[in-house]
Amino acid sequence: MASTVIRGGTVVTHDLTYSADILIENGRIAEIGPNLRGDETLDATGCLVMPGGIDPHTHLEMPFMGTYSADDFESGTRAALAGGTTMVVDFVLPGQGQPLLDGLQMWHNKSGRASCDYSYHMSVTWWGEQVWDDMPKVVEQGITTFKHFMAYKGALMVNDDEMFASFRRLGELGGTALVHAENGDVVAELQRKLMEEGNRGPEAHAYSRPPQVEGEATNRAIMIADMAGVPLYVVHVSCEEAHEAIRRARQQGKRVWGEPLIQHLTLDDSEYRHPDWDHAARRVMSPPFRDRHHQDSLWAGLQSGSLSVVATDHCAFTTQQKRFGLDDFTKIPNGTGGLEDRLPMLWTHGVATGRLTPNEFVAVTSTNIAKILGCYPRKGAVRVGADADLIVWDPEKTKTITASAQQSAIDYNVFEGHEVKGLPRFTLTRGYVAVHDGEIRTREGHGEFVAREANTPVSRALSTWKELTAPRPVTRTGIPASGV
Amino acid sequence: MASTVIRGGTVVTHDLTYSADILIENGRIAEIGPNLRGDETLDATGCLVMPGGIDPHTHLEMPFMGTYSADDFESGTRAALAGGTTMVVDFVLPGQGQPLLDGLQMWHNKSGRASCDYSYHMSVTWWGEQVWDDMPKVVEQGITTFKHFMAYKGALMVNDDEMFASFRRLGELGGTALVHAENGDVVAELQRKLMEEGNRGPEAHAYSRPPQVEGEATNRAIMIADMAGVPLYVVHVSCEEAHEAIRRARQQGKRVWGEPLIQHLTLDDSEYRHPDWDHAARRVMSPPFRDRHHQDSLWAGLQSGSLSVVATDHCAFTTQQKRFGLDDFTKIPNGTGGLEDRLPMLWTHGVATGRLTPNEFVAVTSTNIAKILGCYPRKGAVRVGADADLIVWDPEKTKTITASAQQSAIDYNVFEGHEVKGLPRFTLTRGYVAVHDGEIRTREGHGEFVAREANTPVSRALSTWKELTAPRPVTRTGIPASGV
Amino acid sequence: MASTVIRGGTVVTHDLTYSADILIENGRIAEIGPNLRGDETLDATGCLVMPGGIDPHTHLEMPFMGTYSADDFESGTRAALAGGTTMVVDFVLPGQGQPLLDGLQMWHNKSGRASCDYSYHMSVTWWGEQVWDDMPKVVEQGITTFKHFMAYKGALMVNDDEMFASFRRLGELGGTALVHAENGDVVAELQRKLMEEGNRGPEAHAYSRPPQVEGEATNRAIMIADMAGVPLYVVHVSCEEAHEAIRRARQQGKRVWGEPLIQHLTLDDSEYRHPDWDHAARRVMSPPFRDRHHQDSLWAGLQSGSLSVVATDHCAFTTQQKRFGLDDFTKIPNGTGGLEDRLPMLWTHGVATGRLTPNEFVAVTSTNIAKILGCYPRKGAVRVGADADLIVWDPEKTKTITASAQQSAIDYNVFEGHEVKGLPRFTLTRGYVAVHDGEIRTREGHGEFVAREANTPVSRALSTWKELTAPRPVTRTGIPASGV
Amino acid sequence: MASTVIRGGTVVTHDLTYSADILIENGRIAEIGPNLRGDETLDATGCLVMPGGIDPHTHLEMPFMGTYSADDFESGTRAALAGGTTMVVDFVLPGQGQPLLDGLQMWHNKSGRASCDYSYHMSVTWWGEQVWDDMPKVVEQGITTFKHFMAYKGALMVNDDEMFASFRRLGELGGTALVHAENGDVVAELQRKLMEEGNRGPEAHAYSRPPQVEGEATNRAIMIADMAGVPLYVVHVSCEEAHEAIRRARQQGKRVWGEPLIQHLTLDDSEYRHPDWDHAARRVMSPPFRDRHHQDSLWAGLQSGSLSVVATDHCAFTTQQKRFGLDDFTKIPNGTGGLEDRLPMLWTHGVATGRLTPNEFVAVTSTNIAKILGCYPRKGAVRVGADADLIVWDPEKTKTITASAQQSAIDYNVFEGHEVKGLPRFTLTRGYVAVHDGEIRTREGHGEFVAREANTPVSRALSTWKELTAPRPVTRTGIPASGV
Ligand SMILES: [Zn+2]
Ligand SMILES: [Zn+2]
Ligand SMILES: [Zn+2]
Ligand SMILES: [Zn+2]
Ligand SMILES: [Zn+2]
Ligand SMILES: [Zn+2]
Ligand SMILES: [Zn+2]
Ligand SMILES: [Zn+2]
Repeated sequence: MASTVIRGGTVVTHDLTYSADILIENGRIAEIGPNLRGDETLDATGCLVMPGGIDPHTHLEMPFMGTYSADDFESGTRAALAGGTTMVVDFVLPGQGQPLLDGLQMWHNKSGRASCDYSYHMSVTWWGEQVWDDMPKVVEQGITTFKHFMAYKGALMVNDDEMFASFRRLGELGGTALVHAENGDVVAELQRKLMEEGNRGPEAHAYSRPPQVEGEATNRAIMIADMAGVPLYVVHVSCEEAHEAIRRARQQGKRVWGEPLIQHLTLDDSEYRHPDWDHAARRVMSPPFRDRHHQDSLWAGLQSGSLSVVATDHCAFTTQQKRFGLDDFTKIPNGTGGLEDRLPMLWTHGVATGRLTPNEFVAVTSTNIAKILGCYPRKGAVRVGADADLIVWDPEKTKTITASAQQSAIDYNVFEGHEVKGLPRFTLTRGYVAVHDGEIRTREGHGEFVAREANTPVSRALSTWKELTAPRPVTRTGIPASGV
Repeated sequence: MASTVIRGGTVVTHDLTYSADILIENGRIAEIGPNLRGDETLDATGCLVMPGGIDPHTHLEMPFMGTYSADDFESGTRAALAGGTTMVVDFVLPGQGQPLLDGLQMWHNKSGRASCDYSYHMSVTWWGEQVWDDMPKVVEQGITTFKHFMAYKGALMVNDDEMFASFRRLGELGGTALVHAENGDVVAELQRKLMEEGNRGPEAHAYSRPPQVEGEATNRAIMIADMAGVPLYVVHVSCEEAHEAIRRARQQGKRVWGEPLIQHLTLDDSEYRHPDWDHAARRVMSPPFRDRHHQDSLWAGLQSGSLSVVATDHCAFTTQQKRFGLDDFTKIPNGTGGLEDRLPMLWTHGVATGRLTPNEFVAVTSTNIAKILGCYPRKGAVRVGADADLIVWDPEKTKTITASAQQSAIDYNVFEGHEVKGLPRFTLTRGYVAVHDGEIRTREGHGEFVAREANTPVSRALSTWKELTAPRPVTRTGIPASGV
Repeated sequence: MASTVIRGGTVVTHDLTYSADILIENGRIAEIGPNLRGDETLDATGCLVMPGGIDPHTHLEMPFMGTYSADDFESGTRAALAGGTTMVVDFVLPGQGQPLLDGLQMWHNKSGRASCDYSYHMSVTWWGEQVWDDMPKVVEQGITTFKHFMAYKGALMVNDDEMFASFRRLGELGGTALVHAENGDVVAELQRKLMEEGNRGPEAHAYSRPPQVEGEATNRAIMIADMAGVPLYVVHVSCEEAHEAIRRARQQGKRVWGEPLIQHLTLDDSEYRHPDWDHAARRVMSPPFRDRHHQDSLWAGLQSGSLSVVATDHCAFTTQQKRFGLDDFTKIPNGTGGLEDRLPMLWTHGVATGRLTPNEFVAVTSTNIAKILGCYPRKGAVRVGADADLIVWDPEKTKTITASAQQSAIDYNVFEGHEVKGLPRFTLTRGYVAVHDGEIRTREGHGEFVAREANTPVSRALSTWKELTAPRPVTRTGIPASGV
Repeated sequence: MASTVIRGGTVVTHDLTYSADILIENGRIAEIGPNLRGDETLDATGCLVMPGGIDPHTHLEMPFMGTYSADDFESGTRAALAGGTTMVVDFVLPGQGQPLLDGLQMWHNKSGRASCDYSYHMSVTWWGEQVWDDMPKVVEQGITTFKHFMAYKGALMVNDDEMFASFRRLGELGGTALVHAENGDVVAELQRKLMEEGNRGPEAHAYSRPPQVEGEATNRAIMIADMAGVPLYVVHVSCEEAHEAIRRARQQGKRVWGEPLIQHLTLDDSEYRHPDWDHAARRVMSPPFRDRHHQDSLWAGLQSGSLSVVATDHCAFTTQQKRFGLDDFTKIPNGTGGLEDRLPMLWTHGVATGRLTPNEFVAVTSTNIAKILGCYPRKGAVRVGADADLIVWDPEKTKTITASAQQSAIDYNVFEGHEVKGLPRFTLTRGYVAVHDGEIRTREGHGEFVAREANTPVSRALSTWKELTAPRPVTRTGIPASGV
């Protein structure tokens, strides 16, 4: 296999910034240093060479009401690479009563078309002895993160006792718990009430999932994880209430991470008040966009480290699909795109404004999640031996985001019309140049499954602490004794 | 009926301190002023004349495993009066499927022996259409406060959707929601696990109900009450975690009150490490006593107003009854005494130390709860026309608390050996001098049921605000319209 | 003197709501009850009878650059009465080196024209042995509250060591400390820098006094008061940062109160971006109006009790006076009006929306501050024997605020164009009907000085606690001893 | 120069854990990988190979009352190396009116004897045009961090306006501000008062510097740094109050770091109640040791990232020197040792308990501060090209800390009797093996000055943000215009 050199750029990792060339052989980084030579040369002059983005939160070809979310592993990973993301982590969603390993097989069947590497989170969508038995097998296959839905009552939702049981099992297995945190009971009842009162439009989606409901569930998941002794990762943190719960937990030494989405960092709930139904419905996702003051909270979380990862929850539905919910907002499929736009939007609003350093940008788009997931430094690093998942980032390159030019299969883009400055010149997936100076050269099926390690350092430290502080019986002298 | 004058004292209300005599006729305050005359005179020289205490949290003759808690309405109210408390509010506990009004009748059957006035909270121990239908009838009978247990899984516990439905119903009826806030799912599982691991003693009771579990449930109840638009009263707030949730809610303008118990204000979890099993088991209550730093939080809450009421959760079990749980802490009946000791203990540790003013003492032992419950100024006030539920308080009088001298039916006292300074010289219940200079003259059956008003000012203000900020549909121009 | 009866109204105090007539004799409340008769009758049908407002923060005829603020004790108290306020508390401002008692005399000279009762706060504008010696004499004259300016460098500002000394002295005297909390060093430097950079307009006034600067000083004053053992009252709390500091202190049991102004509750900093210089300059006050999200914080503070009093900081300057600062924002005299509008604006935005109950309205406009200042229940109460400072409030009466119809001497009104609902039908000052169904009948010179009591219950409780927890020497065995 | 190989160990950085040998040539890391060979081999079997510790807070040979702190650059760095610390950063303390560069020269004169590398912070102990002019020259010499004392009134303390001026200057120069945060005015007055009251012993040192006083100053420094647009590093954060201020700032996106000391993490204020005067006096440092609950806060800060660096504030005085303050605690020289014990104590109480991962241990003892100071990755990294400042850490090695076996020149140790588990087998300073399996082989004068870079990524990002959000004048249409 031919070697490639990235020449003349500035390497930017979560840790460091320095000038160096990078030599790639057999899909891996072979050398980092000055004046390297290879068969092919990519000119990185004026550019930053960074670890490719990792999006830990996608739903590609997700089954929904007899159809599927519009981006599959091919178009989804093509969009990812176009925007500088070189790995996605999708959610396996077993059906009610379906063994976890069967669900996993269904996802393996779909992901064969991926153009970039990928991994999965397993979802615990029901509870029983078989799930308990399957969990170690799933971990053995390199899937160490298990998602729990506290919302979607009657479908994906699990109750507190199920969640507690699953969390404890995960703690034993050295895995990490994930939660979609909204109080599903309250959401279901608010939905019913809003429909009854004639609040049937997409704005009612936001009314039915207020920040309090997310904050509550986040707080509850944190307590249960603490009791279970398992690290917790809260997906799509959209509001101050949830962020506050995470901060408060971290202030007590708890091992909890939060993931804001690029959508919540840059868009707000005024979108739902748009007079065009389609416009509003296309923005329907859970949690919904929030009032603007929540954005400040999320940005500060990235700056201070109380929030760790920026993701997309990419789950693309066409306008046609969105219209399932024309008369009933509860039927609008939940989800928006974002895979192609995450990095440019975050650079533009985060780095160019001075809210984040370039190193922090790499941390929150790639390195932090690689560590949390247990695939660092194979992914998320610029380091000899690591996979050559790299982006050559041109901080001066601009474009206006528009659906007509995007890779995603859907007919709109929630960032339509936004100007971005900062775009990939090249995107490499295990050494293959999938994006070449604006040209998309992705290869269907190039992507491979990434198995991950359980028992991360944080997981082990937490177990040590929990063992040290476990309840101990009091020694008594004669039971029962006397006295008042 | 003969008139009585309290002579030469200093009147102390939640609001004011001033010298005056008080004339009592027909069980009510007839006049307040200088140099009053009546048939009987009580010498209040050197004393403070205050509204009698109201204990909003008792369980008298509470059914438990085929027996009853040891203090019934007679001995319980005798203990109350001995300590300066002139009204108790007990919890009606309907059985599973039992109509609320049937439950109420059972409580009326028991309370006939009460020596002081009393009222009830209704408990929502199950949910169904009949409960929904019964709720307004209960409110009409003057019972406006409804308790919900978030713990005691498989028995009293209600789920989030039931609680939300009940809270919304209460909001419509102008009532107030009460919660026992602990996550019952987690407690049940911790109990199972502790027993399995050989943690079978009373200390494991505390291990099974850590502060996090209380904090979580408090936070959840607050969110649900906010969504339902109903004021919330959190009983037995024992820890910083729950207090923090209440403070945070109040800081957002939510209408939430918290009730610490005198036990949690003055005792700590070292009691459970006592080598004598009886000693520890006698202190088993839910929530359990906490690590000492939680006490500072509770005291500061009383000082700042983030906590409003000091109660006892008086639910007395004899040592014999406690020993039901000799080999299994989950079988130890939950509850301690306190009715006789609440006021002297709070005065000693609160007023004599300077943590509370005498007026604040009256507020948190009497007036605040009268307002919250909707029986002010009939109760909780020194005011012409108000019930003459009064205490003549001698701030210099001292004693050492001991079970051998107490009114309660049980054989121990959790405050055994504590010195108190500040005790009632006289306690009057609707004008009758039930405690006369140390002599107990209570009359069985003297007490009457106190019907209370719904739609308190706070309840009405909250409804106005919720209506003003209710979700409104967005007006759309052609659905669906076009555009990206 | 003829007696007056207020007939047919609903009495609303901070504590209670009930139907009663009120009989007034000799300027005091003589009787409260049904069917009272007197020489004159005021029809209160459909109205609420409340304690008159107390505005604890005014600057009438305040010396400024060789002239005076435009409202003097006559026009200022006339505006007050017109809006339902029956007592004002003004700030004595001794000059540098001027004895406190001399300053006091200057204020007595001005206040003779007042139409309603008044009191003073003393300001500690410099420090020295004479101030130390004068403080008890001032307290003896019934002035128990001492203001300290942490801003206005080179003029009124005192340093930390001076403030600490003064606070300790006050603690000994049983008084209460007041602060204007902004970091004067930082403000002065920001002013210099902004002017230098060409930011010379009224908007730069706001830039020079950001919320952080207020929050910092508030936090500092709280610490110093805690070390000194004196209760603290923070005037004009305008932002979340200052409110947070107060909340945090109260959560620790500290005795601190906060006073938001009606302006900060209802207006925001967009006023300074108005293209008309006059419009912006007329809104120049310190602290400046804030970004809208601070308002939510202040309202929630009133609801939860973390903020206690709504005032105005009434300090009226004409447009002509404001133009002193045409080329230099630092020369624009600081201050706005508000005396006439405080109650109607607060009722409209607070009670009519459901944010506050009517009782809470009374508390924050009158009763709370009467207690804090030590003149309750002479003022702030509806109670036999209290001064008949009363308002008959018509909650249905409306008007549009406009300068052309106001009592204040200035030519504009910062609330111009605001609709209010809820206005006084009658305002009585010690029984005299100064406002009669819209007609202003104030009497110049009717007002009297109100001497106040030191050693309030809170002050005494705090002293007890501080004595109890004072540092004690460790007993040592031979000094120095041995060992490592 | 002979090459050295560290063989058979596990490399642990702030980022990663992996097995590798390390080849060292010419004082730098030449290669990292399997099976390396060199002239000398150090056996790291069973050991962790980590970046040497960096202690950013020492006072070696510090002038004090005509004498000096007992550890000079020779004994101090010897103690450092013995405990695994390979770089210290000392504070240049110019005299009043002394040019900064003169002060710097004085420190250079002393540091020539250092056995390991070192750098300096400059202290701004007075303010004037010369200081302003000297600051860029100091930065050019690689000293980019400037310390400001908010305490030590009459000596080192600077006022708010001086601090603000200095911070603004630093912001322009791309430096970082450091503060010793205690309110010096209040401390001075408390000292005076305590002495007057007869509180003259070392316990009064703690009484005179309560947590509130540290929290206040921390909060103030943060505000001033925010106004000045400069990153802030708070040294010796000892209490929840200061930590809370830092957390709150970080939650708002401010660039603030906090440094707890190993002493405050592991010792508490009960030390001052020891009956032996010497025992107590030897623990006198500022801030003093705190009540135990502060420790939990500090540990959680390290876990969550709200605190970044563990230091010592090593400033060793002999018992003889401590006795200067026999009758007057204010004369006891402030300072304790710790250089030799920091890493073993932190490993024992942090890593072995599970509170910290080994990677987090490296971060808080070395890498984080190297980044903050601008000398990463030359220091704080295991990376080809980096200085070979390395420790071979044996996690199973134990000892009992005792003064009799320590390197420090003083006659006691504040950790006397503490068992530690986890000690260096080898310590290398730029490749030289200064500690060899327990044997101390330090070379006086081996240490070199480390110049550091200004304009770190955080500094640049902050400047970008401050420029973006700087105040802008409002455009006005005719000044003054009309209207109300
Ligand atoms: Zn989700
Ligand atoms: Zn999702
Ligand atoms: Zn309970
Ligand atoms: Zn109970
Ligand atoms: Zn002011
Ligand atoms: Zn003022
Ligand atoms: Zn220091
Ligand atoms: Zn130091």
